[in-house]
Amino acid sequence: MSREPTRIPAEPRSGSRLRVWLRLLAASRAIEDRLRRRFRQEFGTTLPRFDVMSALARRPGGLKMSEISSQLRVSNGNVTGIVDRLTEEGVAVRVAVAGDRRASLVRLTPKGVAAFEAQAAAHEAWVGEMLTGLDEEAAGVFIERLDRLLETLRERTTP
Amino acid sequence: MSREPTRIPAEPRSGSRLRVWLRLLAASRAIEDRLRRRFRQEFGTTLPRFDVMSALARRPGGLKMSEISSQLRVSNGNVTGIVDRLTEEGVAVRVAVAGDRRASLVRLTPKGVAAFEAQAAAHEAWVGEMLTGLDEEAAGVFIERLDRLLETLRERTTP
Repeated sequence: MSREPTRIPAEPRSGSRLRVWLRLLAASRAIEDRLRRRFRQEFGTTLPRFDVMSALARRPGGLKMSEISSQLRVSNGNVTGIVDRLTEEGVAVRVAVAGDRRASLVRLTPKGVAAFEAQAAAHEAWVGEMLTGLDEEAAGVFIERLDRLLETLRERTTP
Repeated sequence: MSREPTRIPAEPRSGSRLRVWLRLLAASRAIEDRLRRRFRQEFGTTLPRFDVMSALARRPGGLKMSEISSQLRVSNGNVTGIVDRLTEEGVAVRVAVAGDRRASLVRLTPKGVAAFEAQAAAHEAWVGEMLTGLDEEAAGVFIERLDRLLETLRERTTP
């Protein structure tokens, strides 16, 4: 009897890590679902469209198609479809690159910038509402923890 | 001067909530990408297939197609394709429902149960590796915080 270990963990550690992951996934899907619905209802737009506009808004000088898809990690085909629609609607334009006849850059038009700003403000407000239970301090703790998690993931990435 | 508020928050609250959300999304996408890659490499399978098998494994009595899609929130069409492949491979079977000629239940075969168990064990181990920076206590705090977040989201859901 005296040789028994004094304390056996009730469950392997990976069990609680799995629970963390399942909740992370559930929370992020739940938030994404709600955002998707509100973008559709209030702006008649989609999350991928908002993401493309958001990437363009960060680079007023314009982005190549390939840069958009690598930033958003969606296929070139999808980005092409989205950019086609944005240009039809006058929200974005394709501009030629000096000295490179085959390349073009995509940029938001002033109309596109205004539309994006309205959507981004609504997006931030919706997220603020959804995460209303998080005060400033709790948000800070959460951010720190998630940053550490993201860092660990980056370190452990096999090339 | 004395009428000035003593402390003005440096930024609106929604700003830090937005940062929480962007990190939650980044973490969950990063983990999902890694899981997707490992499922493909090591089992030649996909996350949606694993999710369907996981739903079936939780209900040994079988699930209707509509129950699978409502549990996983994917379209009936996608579930049909996945179940078709699982049955072709002998991993799942469709069984008739007594007294209802049009309905059928999908169940894992013993081969399917064994395959799922191997995949679930690998899945848990991969998640454990990825979240290796989280000790038991940190995982507990994270779980508590995510549960509170999920609860708030459920309460605030407009029907």
